[in-house]
Amino acid sequence: MASIDPVTLRRELHRHPEPAWREFETTARLVSHLESLDLDALYVGPEAIEGDHRLAVPDDDEIERWFDRAREAGADPDVLDRLEGGYTGAVAVIERGDGPTIGLRVDIDGLPQLESDDDEHRPAAEGFRSETGESMHACGHDAHAAIGVGTLEAVADSDFEGTLKVFFQPAEEVIGGGKSMAKSEHIEDVEYLYALHVGLDHPTGTVVAGIDDFLAVRHLEATFTGEPAHAGATPQEGRNAIQALATAIQNCYAIPRHADGPTRVNVGVVEAGDAANIIAEEAHLVAEVRGQTTELMAYMSERVERTLRAAAEMHDCEVEIEIGAEAPSAESDDELREIVAEVAESVDGVDTVVHQSALGGSEDATFLMKEVQDNGGLACYVGVGTDHPGGHHTATFDVDEPTIRHGIDTLSAAIEAIPNADR
Amino acid sequence: MASIDPVTLRRELHRHPEPAWREFETTARLVSHLESLDLDALYVGPEAIEGDHRLAVPDDDEIERWFDRAREAGADPDVLDRLEGGYTGAVAVIERGDGPTIGLRVDIDGLPQLESDDDEHRPAAEGFRSETGESMHACGHDAHAAIGVGTLEAVADSDFEGTLKVFFQPAEEVIGGGKSMAKSEHIEDVEYLYALHVGLDHPTGTVVAGIDDFLAVRHLEATFTGEPAHAGATPQEGRNAIQALATAIQNCYAIPRHADGPTRVNVGVVEAGDAANIIAEEAHLVAEVRGQTTELMAYMSERVERTLRAAAEMHDCEVEIEIGAEAPSAESDDELREIVAEVAESVDGVDTVVHQSALGGSEDATFLMKEVQDNGGLACYVGVGTDHPGGHHTATFDVDEPTIRHGIDTLSAAIEAIPNADR
Amino acid sequence: MASIDPVTLRRELHRHPEPAWREFETTARLVSHLESLDLDALYVGPEAIEGDHRLAVPDDDEIERWFDRAREAGADPDVLDRLEGGYTGAVAVIERGDGPTIGLRVDIDGLPQLESDDDEHRPAAEGFRSETGESMHACGHDAHAAIGVGTLEAVADSDFEGTLKVFFQPAEEVIGGGKSMAKSEHIEDVEYLYALHVGLDHPTGTVVAGIDDFLAVRHLEATFTGEPAHAGATPQEGRNAIQALATAIQNCYAIPRHADGPTRVNVGVVEAGDAANIIAEEAHLVAEVRGQTTELMAYMSERVERTLRAAAEMHDCEVEIEIGAEAPSAESDDELREIVAEVAESVDGVDTVVHQSALGGSEDATFLMKEVQDNGGLACYVGVGTDHPGGHHTATFDVDEPTIRHGIDTLSAAIEAIPNADR
Amino acid sequence: MASIDPVTLRRELHRHPEPAWREFETTARLVSHLESLDLDALYVGPEAIEGDHRLAVPDDDEIERWFDRAREAGADPDVLDRLEGGYTGAVAVIERGDGPTIGLRVDIDGLPQLESDDDEHRPAAEGFRSETGESMHACGHDAHAAIGVGTLEAVADSDFEGTLKVFFQPAEEVIGGGKSMAKSEHIEDVEYLYALHVGLDHPTGTVVAGIDDFLAVRHLEATFTGEPAHAGATPQEGRNAIQALATAIQNCYAIPRHADGPTRVNVGVVEAGDAANIIAEEAHLVAEVRGQTTELMAYMSERVERTLRAAAEMHDCEVEIEIGAEAPSAESDDELREIVAEVAESVDGVDTVVHQSALGGSEDATFLMKEVQDNGGLACYVGVGTDHPGGHHTATFDVDEPTIRHGIDTLSAAIEAIPNADR
Repeated sequence: MASIDPVTLRRELHRHPEPAWREFETTARLVSHLESLDLDALYVGPEAIEGDHRLAVPDDDEIERWFDRAREAGADPDVLDRLEGGYTGAVAVIERGDGPTIGLRVDIDGLPQLESDDDEHRPAAEGFRSETGESMHACGHDAHAAIGVGTLEAVADSDFEGTLKVFFQPAEEVIGGGKSMAKSEHIEDVEYLYALHVGLDHPTGTVVAGIDDFLAVRHLEATFTGEPAHAGATPQEGRNAIQALATAIQNCYAIPRHADGPTRVNVGVVEAGDAANIIAEEAHLVAEVRGQTTELMAYMSERVERTLRAAAEMHDCEVEIEIGAEAPSAESDDELREIVAEVAESVDGVDTVVHQSALGGSEDATFLMKEVQDNGGLACYVGVGTDHPGGHHTATFDVDEPTIRHGIDTLSAAIEAIPNADR
Repeated sequence: MASIDPVTLRRELHRHPEPAWREFETTARLVSHLESLDLDALYVGPEAIEGDHRLAVPDDDEIERWFDRAREAGADPDVLDRLEGGYTGAVAVIERGDGPTIGLRVDIDGLPQLESDDDEHRPAAEGFRSETGESMHACGHDAHAAIGVGTLEAVADSDFEGTLKVFFQPAEEVIGGGKSMAKSEHIEDVEYLYALHVGLDHPTGTVVAGIDDFLAVRHLEATFTGEPAHAGATPQEGRNAIQALATAIQNCYAIPRHADGPTRVNVGVVEAGDAANIIAEEAHLVAEVRGQTTELMAYMSERVERTLRAAAEMHDCEVEIEIGAEAPSAESDDELREIVAEVAESVDGVDTVVHQSALGGSEDATFLMKEVQDNGGLACYVGVGTDHPGGHHTATFDVDEPTIRHGIDTLSAAIEAIPNADR
Repeated sequence: MASIDPVTLRRELHRHPEPAWREFETTARLVSHLESLDLDALYVGPEAIEGDHRLAVPDDDEIERWFDRAREAGADPDVLDRLEGGYTGAVAVIERGDGPTIGLRVDIDGLPQLESDDDEHRPAAEGFRSETGESMHACGHDAHAAIGVGTLEAVADSDFEGTLKVFFQPAEEVIGGGKSMAKSEHIEDVEYLYALHVGLDHPTGTVVAGIDDFLAVRHLEATFTGEPAHAGATPQEGRNAIQALATAIQNCYAIPRHADGPTRVNVGVVEAGDAANIIAEEAHLVAEVRGQTTELMAYMSERVERTLRAAAEMHDCEVEIEIGAEAPSAESDDELREIVAEVAESVDGVDTVVHQSALGGSEDATFLMKEVQDNGGLACYVGVGTDHPGGHHTATFDVDEPTIRHGIDTLSAAIEAIPNADR
Repeated sequence: MASIDPVTLRRELHRHPEPAWREFETTARLVSHLESLDLDALYVGPEAIEGDHRLAVPDDDEIERWFDRAREAGADPDVLDRLEGGYTGAVAVIERGDGPTIGLRVDIDGLPQLESDDDEHRPAAEGFRSETGESMHACGHDAHAAIGVGTLEAVADSDFEGTLKVFFQPAEEVIGGGKSMAKSEHIEDVEYLYALHVGLDHPTGTVVAGIDDFLAVRHLEATFTGEPAHAGATPQEGRNAIQALATAIQNCYAIPRHADGPTRVNVGVVEAGDAANIIAEEAHLVAEVRGQTTELMAYMSERVERTLRAAAEMHDCEVEIEIGAEAPSAESDDELREIVAEVAESVDGVDTVVHQSALGGSEDATFLMKEVQDNGGLACYVGVGTDHPGGHHTATFDVDEPTIRHGIDTLSAAIEAIPNADR
């Protein structure tokens, strides 16, 4: 089996970041590496996901633009053809005799933001900065994918007995890909599932044996439609979509807190109107709600929807509300936490094992975790610390590369430990 | 002197609409026609306007894009070179012996909106629809320019004694060009000024001898800057520019009415934020205020500014406010109203003369009117009715072409009448 | 006929101010003086007004409290009995041969506010300050009533031929009494109507021959009802009437201006909630809308109502809206303006005659004016200037007493002039 | 020692409920009963509390009104004289040999609300409904006081060795009395402290060994002052306190949630304006903020204050903010929880022992708990279940009386257990 240096792979992926559902070159590059391994099965694109359950898919033009870019960049056309239309991702499988079926989920997408070209930013200084000019691996999914490949290789080389499936999931940043993998047949027989994230303010050398408190999340988009009018000559004839928008925003943030647990609401994007002198006909907003539980998220969602509708009515506008991507809440299981904590103690370079930590954000790994748990299995979300100079989602985010080895060692050990624990 | 059919000219201009400060092809085409006339002087671009007083100038890229487009469309390169950087417009002069100096101001810019391609829309049906794919003469400035040329020609052919200056003004739609012409030397000796507008809900056959109640107007842009934060993980660390925006909008519309006369406020454009899950760092709005008098407009402007600042402070954001284009209020003088009313009675096709009418909107012809009036001269804003199927600034706006002849006949007669009245 | 010094009468009334529909002592005192005159008819209380059309009537307890106070103060019990339940006011009539029927409307109510006891405030210094401890003639209706009696006496003493009816109208301050007098039979045969007001920023010595631009007005009250909840333990269970209230207020003020003319909106009173730690179950507001025309007022009223309903819905509350008192807009007739202007020139002490002036406020004299005009008659609202140290409706408002004589002289002359003009 | 039936005492107190800092009759009645016991010390009124640290004290008139009422009701004048000015409450002490000093805190105030007179409401049916016509024991403090007296008596009758101090605390409902007792000398030597509450949705027969998650709380009052103006004639001259109020309310509720834990905000009372036609000069609000920790409460408080100030500025008003009563957060100590849980198992009638429960509300017992804990002692807040037909703070709240015995038995046992545990 050909060995791939995971740091080299991470840097290769880092140079070619692609946002959600546009991971064409990324998938092709991963497939090319995976094919060099001794796999028992490799599912690519539409075979890896349940396409109908993709969430937050961008429009066709945007998908096509990135598809063309990947083709021009020289991505393997055979793989590319299988991904057409934005069906990205892969599932790689090794079967090693009789034993439990274990999943490892890693995400592979980048973010639509410009990477720093500052000399202090290592990818810039050392020549592996993003080459796209518009996207960036600013959340470490390049390292996640490299850990996925490395763990697969490590487990394959061990005396592991059982089946390992590594899910290279697209579109995590828009909470769009988790559901499509959770709905695929590949998850059905998974008895144990690991997912991972690097960083999250944990320094290099730390392993978190179970990150928790993922908030359930839902995205909503709303478009208010009123009636344009000349703001000077006939202001009374307008039905002002911007006034509806402003009223909605103010009141969405003012939805009452809930005593049962944390809730969140954010209107993150607004866009409206054409000209200073025209009463705006149309106003658009993108919002999200979260809750500690799926019920609390639903409470927020319902209130936001009522607020949007009443704001429209107040200003005699129509409003169309579109429910977008969403992810449930989930918790790590203690049995797997313990396994991770135990194996991490022996990993070279790991000096601290944290037994639990809350995220406060959301993750669509929860779709896969819940699916496995609902099927009677166990799941655990593992944190692998990394010193990151800039925060997640900022232009100077970077992964401290020893982290990659810590991730591979911890996860391969945690996977290999299960057949024994299982007995 | 070569005669130009004004309807043909109007259709030619209609096919090539260019928005404010980007009237490259338009100016070149007008210059080409004007040069065929027996003028005493022709000032083009920077010679026609006082460049430092241009308001609401778009950014360089945008100007360059339209400049390149005009060049590619085959506009006269000699003229184009003189307009580079967005110094558009022209002033054409005829001197016919001893007599008063009279100005006629017409505007020449189009709007950044798509024209209807419906079969019922005459420009589409008869093949003179906008060819740019992104702009349109949706307010009749194509007809205004044609009337300007036609009037010049008609007066030149008459026994008029005096000087006539026709101001082909750019950038009226953004109230950006009037000031630059009012500050130019060409206005200084103008003793009588006419300006005109077609339509405004007056049907074909009507002439309005003095449109009034132009509201003074000012544009404001504001950018709120806060601090981004992850909306799920650390909402308390954000300083939310979208909340500041919403609070500002609600309170701007709620500025008290003023007993001294009509006031207006509109937030016409908003744009903010990057992603549903990020507390917005930046929010931008474009607003305008108006007042029956310049004082009332200033009252509104001051209140809007205070509201914006307090909204920023409330949400711990900064706000940068930019005062944009503006125009004063102005009134037509009775002496000129009477001349217009009298000559219009004899114009072929004119069946109704309205002695006064209020606009309720704004116009930067008021800069020129006030300048002339401040210098001791007289000014009158003339309405020339036209049956327009769609409203001003809509995709199906069109000019009923007999209007163009009514305009030329009325204005040339009104110009020619002054030397006699003046004696 | 016993003569009453009008300044003495004004001071007597000033000491006993009573608010709307509680003018028991006031009516009794006026009746006592009127009975000493040589009247042809005197209608008191329910005979003077159409009781079903009283607007903005306070609750029974409040009426009874003032009724008892009047009784205790020694008001004539025979008159009082006729006023029971808040049917106040009077109409006094003199008939002098054959001639036109002319009305004069004066209002008689005070305001529920404390009068200044400052030494610089003449009523305090000279001993005729309000004795009620809770109400005040802060708008000059004491002077109006005195002018009404004085004018009646002056006309009675002249060689006037015709019928004069003086309407002593209750409840103007709440725009509650005008309608009840306009609906009474007494107005039906009135061919000419004068109404008057002192002050309004016109100094002593000025007469305004026709105040105009009374805005049509309507009062609205709204009560939001939600669900209380403990703000700490179960905030999500509340339906917050105070949030509905705040949203409604913000959006009421933001109702678009109307191009057809001035509009107004004000939320003047709010009251809500019981305790800091309880989500408010109930919130109450009192608002008013105005418009230059009755249509513009209706536009505002409709928008306010929609805003209130949508605000309730947004916060899952109910809202009950009560339409309160209202008054139409009205204009003075030129014929009467001219008469007033002409006679005022000769009045001793009047040095300035203003031919027209806009009020910008509202007045329910418009009910009577419109009724007379609708019946084919003419109406004129006359201003009588007075130097007033404090503004109307402030604790230091006072009438400069020579004004009273100016009012009597102007109005009696204007009344006496009609039979001649009428011929 | 004379025995007092605690149910009889509870009903006696229930008939005479007095709100915060007005517990004159209540204190006098308690003192009268306490004096019949074999106490070692009894501190009354100003001796029991540190008067300078009273919070949320009502105004003098209100205090005097209830003082007079108590005197008229026949309360012991000797006791009353000591309470004058609103220094209520008492501390009763028994010393029984050498042993630890233990405190028990009970609160004694009622609420300013009308009690139900429905036949289904037992106090009404059985003749011990509130006799004041304006206040009610709607939160069980009558039972608390009775349990305090009963526990004192029970412990006195036992072979307890140590010192017991029962704190009869005033003004809990306004979180106004806790601080004044925590600052008194009586708390200084307390090594163990119990506090208790009946009900809170726990049924009769349940004991909660440690209620937790008291939110820290702070009250704020704000008064906006603008400039009045006539809403019709000169709206632009007003500085509208009601607009400032509405803007403030909307934005207070929209203060971002905090990831560190629960926060709360409520504007519970608003009052503003005088008349529909006057732009409001003054607007008043009463608000509260809470947080899981004192820091989170301070975060909310700071944001509310900034919001209030910016809202004032936006509408050119002044705002005066008054920080009112507040209470810190606190937690029960495990050692005492265990003692309570253990003894409760043996209490007759107690069938369920809950080991921990969150309140979600606030309580100023936390002042005393923190004081004891800061001094190195232990504290525990005990819940005693009661079936209550109506919710706390509603007109039909009632205590199921067997609860009183459960409370006495549990607390006296928990107190008696300490000297043994302490050894």
